[in-house]
Amino acid sequence: MRARVHVSLKPGVLDPQGKAVGDALGRLGFSEVGQVRVSKTIDLELADTLTAAEAEARVREMCESLLANTVVERYSIEIS
Amino acid sequence: MRARVHVSLKPGVLDPQGKAVGDALGRLGFSEVGQVRVSKTIDLELADTLTAAEAEARVREMCESLLANTVVERYSIEIS
Repeated sequence: MRARVHVSLKPGVLDPQGKAVGDALGRLGFSEVGQVRVSKTIDLELADTLTAAEAEARVREMCESLLANTVVERYSIEIS
Repeated sequence: MRARVHVSLKPGVLDPQGKAVGDALGRLGFSEVGQVRVSKTIDLELADTLTAAEAEARVREMCESLLANTVVERYSIEIS
């Protein structure tokens, strides 16, 4: 079983990395680019003994304890 | 118009960040976790004057020149 976690900054939280990428693209001549936001995707291999519901609950615990900083980040989980 | 670029390490390329996350999850008691891979997602706002095909071509140029290191990374582009 696999899980994909997408961790992004909450709307309104400044994204210095995205700003740096946007500025660099502008300097390279990509003037059509507006706001840029950078986020993380974490792909996890999970033991096949888990059901999809168990896997989602465990991955949610992983997000809350390690993968996301829920003060400034939000996350979404896909199980496949 | 918006573009989402997903940049990940090519298969076979070591991912120290993913390894660190996997090890940390193991230490926290998430023993069901196997391999972990971390990748980047870049969301770009683009000028609405572009067609979807033009936008994809421009974003491909951005990937080749700045967003991805194509020696070790691969990328995919979604236009919406």
